[in-house]
Amino acid sequence: MKKTDLIPITVIGLGNMGLALAAAYLAEGHHVTVWNRTAGKADRLIGNGAVQAESAAGAVAASKVIVVCLSTYEVVRSTLIPMEAELAGRVIVNLTTGTPEEARHLDRWAKEKGIDYLDGAIMTVPPLIGTQEALILYSGRKELFHTYQSVLKVMGGSTTYLKEDPGAALLYDLAMLTMLYGAWYSYLHAHALLRTANITAAEFLPYASNWLQHLIVPSLTTSEAARILDEGHYVTDVSNLAVNKFALDNIINSSQELGVPADWLLPIQAVAEQMVAIGYGNDGFERVFETMINRPANQFALSRSIPASI
Amino acid sequence: MKKTDLIPITVIGLGNMGLALAAAYLAEGHHVTVWNRTAGKADRLIGNGAVQAESAAGAVAASKVIVVCLSTYEVVRSTLIPMEAELAGRVIVNLTTGTPEEARHLDRWAKEKGIDYLDGAIMTVPPLIGTQEALILYSGRKELFHTYQSVLKVMGGSTTYLKEDPGAALLYDLAMLTMLYGAWYSYLHAHALLRTANITAAEFLPYASNWLQHLIVPSLTTSEAARILDEGHYVTDVSNLAVNKFALDNIINSSQELGVPADWLLPIQAVAEQMVAIGYGNDGFERVFETMINRPANQFALSRSIPASI
Repeated sequence: MKKTDLIPITVIGLGNMGLALAAAYLAEGHHVTVWNRTAGKADRLIGNGAVQAESAAGAVAASKVIVVCLSTYEVVRSTLIPMEAELAGRVIVNLTTGTPEEARHLDRWAKEKGIDYLDGAIMTVPPLIGTQEALILYSGRKELFHTYQSVLKVMGGSTTYLKEDPGAALLYDLAMLTMLYGAWYSYLHAHALLRTANITAAEFLPYASNWLQHLIVPSLTTSEAARILDEGHYVTDVSNLAVNKFALDNIINSSQELGVPADWLLPIQAVAEQMVAIGYGNDGFERVFETMINRPANQFALSRSIPASI
Repeated sequence: MKKTDLIPITVIGLGNMGLALAAAYLAEGHHVTVWNRTAGKADRLIGNGAVQAESAAGAVAASKVIVVCLSTYEVVRSTLIPMEAELAGRVIVNLTTGTPEEARHLDRWAKEKGIDYLDGAIMTVPPLIGTQEALILYSGRKELFHTYQSVLKVMGGSTTYLKEDPGAALLYDLAMLTMLYGAWYSYLHAHALLRTANITAAEFLPYASNWLQHLIVPSLTTSEAARILDEGHYVTDVSNLAVNKFALDNIINSSQELGVPADWLLPIQAVAEQMVAIGYGNDGFERVFETMINRPANQFALSRSIPASI
């Protein structure tokens, strides 16, 4: 890090993540101003040299770059919108979790007010902030990202720019978290089934590990797997939707027989059943993807038969 | 394979999997007798030297080892139970998919009738049968497995014995398939979210790959992860249940906003919400495992607070 990069930084929001972000800048030698709605969170940071602003406006006035990490976009809006005059000409780096649409709306507001805006999604946990491993995704104005890239890298070594759409960072975040919960909850379900026969997680570990690494991950992360979705060409010669539907039935029936809740699988079974019923039983399981895309909110359009174009 | 292992084999059930099993034995030089409820499936096998029995009883009479791979246990029962006399003294290797309880019941029936019984679960697709990669799990009498191990290895190089409980093979099967559908369906959900901003699966591939390999898989397959479940000790210092519940809310809200169905996540959100409401918000997400175990069928016992013992 060059000395010229040591610009003052303001961090708004001192939850566990905000505290970690401010600490990363302090550790790098930046002048750090912090602000939080409730006081008392900054004590250790102040001991390490951070300045606690008396007001949000004071915090904004102290730095050109304002890192925002609050609990929700609603809090972001109620904090930032009253300060549009103070924020004009500065850079908001918003790392708050929210929906892609919320990021897009806030970006439009910032543009109207002459405020530079970058939206980011932190794909790591607070203890890893400031390390090489920490992945933080950004979207919004590319030129703005490049201007501040070295400053952003203080928070995470794996800082990555995605694209101009300011909702993209949160969309990637959502996609990655959705995959996490699918893998995690089904892993817990699997262990609840095994527990019915007193099979421990330690005993199953080599099987889980081998299965994830040598079957699940390779089957999802090839360019062939990507092509199936991008081209909407759901052919298979190994395990068709009818076979998968039967496997889902068996998991649900067995879980019920063994007293393990399988509620989360019911919507998946229903979609597989509907797709088999309308004639897609010989397609691959990925055919159910068609029930998820190109639809108005909360409506199914199961009768589509035209492959999705890219 | 020693010549002495080339005992005659009967295969009952000629779906895609049964055909592959019979073909593997033929390729190895075994005398193979086949039978299927509906005729015509065996044409290619007969061309390669298999004998088609005139009746199920005839098929059983031809070999000491009877490999059974039918569509359901109901079909297995209706096929085998009338042949108890013919089956006495022979070995049933049942590779049919069903519930662990169905395997246990059939094992009890076989014991009563003086029939040797092994239950197996095929963890691969038909084209890989007979290869080194093909994983087939067995449970039931260990001594019986060891007697026939070399014969069983003809079907799959990664033939593995689990334990005496004849339901164990199907339980491992269920656990592994549950993990597959959780990972697979959530991967499709992720791509449906990305599609709303025209982000292709090819574009997301390096992120999906990195996320699965470097975050999801390691977080689920350490002995520490196994210990959390086995000891029921759900502490965390990184990302607690309240934070995970908020992330689930955000995925569901964003999906609804973007018109992507998120029904499968609703039961997971509900369980997380209930556990936070009764005071487990500072525990790890794995606390939801307690809602899945040690319960009578189809009833929740959310108020449990005693850690599960192994």
